[in-house]
Amino acid sequence: MHYAPFLSLLEEKIVSLIDLKKDLPAELYAPQQYILSLGGKRLRPLLAMIGADLFDGDIHKAIPAALSVELFHNFSLIHDDILDKAPLRRGQKTIHKKWNTDIAILSGDALLVRAYEELAMSDEKSLRELFVLFNQTAKEVCEGQQEDMNFEKIPRVSVAQYTEMITKKTAVLLACSLKMGAVSAGAKQTDARKLYECGKHLGIAFQLKDDILDVYGDKDKFGKQEAGDILSNKKTFLLLKALELSNARQLQELESWLMKKDYKPAEKIAGVKKVFEKLKIRAVAEQEVNFHFETAMNCLSGVKAGNKKKNNFRTFCEELMQREK
Amino acid sequence: MHYAPFLSLLEEKIVSLIDLKKDLPAELYAPQQYILSLGGKRLRPLLAMIGADLFDGDIHKAIPAALSVELFHNFSLIHDDILDKAPLRRGQKTIHKKWNTDIAILSGDALLVRAYEELAMSDEKSLRELFVLFNQTAKEVCEGQQEDMNFEKIPRVSVAQYTEMITKKTAVLLACSLKMGAVSAGAKQTDARKLYECGKHLGIAFQLKDDILDVYGDKDKFGKQEAGDILSNKKTFLLLKALELSNARQLQELESWLMKKDYKPAEKIAGVKKVFEKLKIRAVAEQEVNFHFETAMNCLSGVKAGNKKKNNFRTFCEELMQREK
Repeated sequence: MHYAPFLSLLEEKIVSLIDLKKDLPAELYAPQQYILSLGGKRLRPLLAMIGADLFDGDIHKAIPAALSVELFHNFSLIHDDILDKAPLRRGQKTIHKKWNTDIAILSGDALLVRAYEELAMSDEKSLRELFVLFNQTAKEVCEGQQEDMNFEKIPRVSVAQYTEMITKKTAVLLACSLKMGAVSAGAKQTDARKLYECGKHLGIAFQLKDDILDVYGDKDKFGKQEAGDILSNKKTFLLLKALELSNARQLQELESWLMKKDYKPAEKIAGVKKVFEKLKIRAVAEQEVNFHFETAMNCLSGVKAGNKKKNNFRTFCEELMQREK
Repeated sequence: MHYAPFLSLLEEKIVSLIDLKKDLPAELYAPQQYILSLGGKRLRPLLAMIGADLFDGDIHKAIPAALSVELFHNFSLIHDDILDKAPLRRGQKTIHKKWNTDIAILSGDALLVRAYEELAMSDEKSLRELFVLFNQTAKEVCEGQQEDMNFEKIPRVSVAQYTEMITKKTAVLLACSLKMGAVSAGAKQTDARKLYECGKHLGIAFQLKDDILDVYGDKDKFGKQEAGDILSNKKTFLLLKALELSNARQLQELESWLMKKDYKPAEKIAGVKKVFEKLKIRAVAEQEVNFHFETAMNCLSGVKAGNKKKNNFRTFCEELMQREK
């Protein structure tokens, strides 16, 4: 992968952010170090570095932005895992399980503050712009998370509402990361904005791809329970689109599966997938992924940056989209 | 009160921060508006305004700082109330009781981000300094809260550890508020630093006064259960100092009350207070309050600002200290 050197630089910075010899009390800092050390793709900070690299800027200027988006992402994971009652994160115990909910709340708060501490180290020239963008993004992520929680409690959600929600919950942070890198490197407003749109559509494409992989992915590679979303009635693009496209009989069939309390998992999965197949939902979803991916690539094409740099980024995005897990 | 016009200006700004017609989803914003509308002394934002006023600066320049410290304070109340399992805040239901814990976590997060949004509106000249100070303070508040939680679980805490904890949990935010106001108004570094120390010692004095009032305050005016701290074995200055000053017999007596599971509340209060009285704990605590208050006033005296302005602030602090609730 072309960006391997960026990744090693980031990894080194990220794991040394917390120093348990100095950062006390340990109850507050050990959970922060724990979640940062669980790894992950480091996609957000990498996008910040790429955003700077595109403009031949000194990528080191984007490090405060890169670290701040990674710290923010980890803060949001800690608190979301509490809300989702998730026992595992990246195959390891979540913080509220390994410690307790009080510690998860407080160490999450402290990690959010830490994200702002990194951000405050940005260059004078871009500080306020980065700060305002980061705030706006953080606010939207909170709104997206709340909307996601609301969706669980209302009977019908439109595909448009769903897209709006995943845009806020997931996509804007990728957009923000890319734009923050660009702004750190002194990119022009018009290019920075195009990169924001690029990141946003990439983010939507990734999330929709996730929805598809949950149902149609190779479950060993994907590392999750097969079709967990179907079993939990999760309002994904696939289900919501199916509900929109169904005729009366298909709607009845889908809804009977959604309402059934007592079922064999394999039967429910097969039943819902049968309706999906009649409606060609997988193809519809893949078209939607492609639409957002192509929109992202068009935004990238419009950015005034070296073609080689843009091609490196394009290849990186394509590889990300081809993941089967 | 000399600062009544500042307070009305602040109150107007604070209650209009959230607009439930625009700020959606309501589940995220209604709790924020609710806690901001519960009132309180608005001490922190007022200190920010006073910090600016001392230097004849345009107090309006301190408004972003003032709002950000008030929003931060309210964020910390929401999350602390979850950790403390508190059912009431200012006589009204806490957010996790009125809504639920998930909503309290997420609306608290959003309120912290909102604090940073206000901060980002500060003048170019002071933005980074305010940002760094705010971050440092927010971090210390989290550390103080964690230390407070830790203290509940360890058998002995020294008075020095306790003072360190209340400094972080309570005093640094008052210090930060005053200094942010001063910095916003363009005060010199040396004066801003003195005001920080002034605010810090004021904060310690207030917290110790709280500890005294819990045991010796007029319970109707104080509005809390009489000597609730004694009943809950809370490690306050009074108890910790008593444990330090006790002879072997007094120590045994105190510890037997601390360990007793079955007691009549009035008897436990009387028993502990009897030891306090033998050790003259109230006088020791009042000396400590006076020490910090005088230190604060000395720091204020050293600030290069108009005497009339300084006297107004001194009078305000004295009135605050004389509260019996």
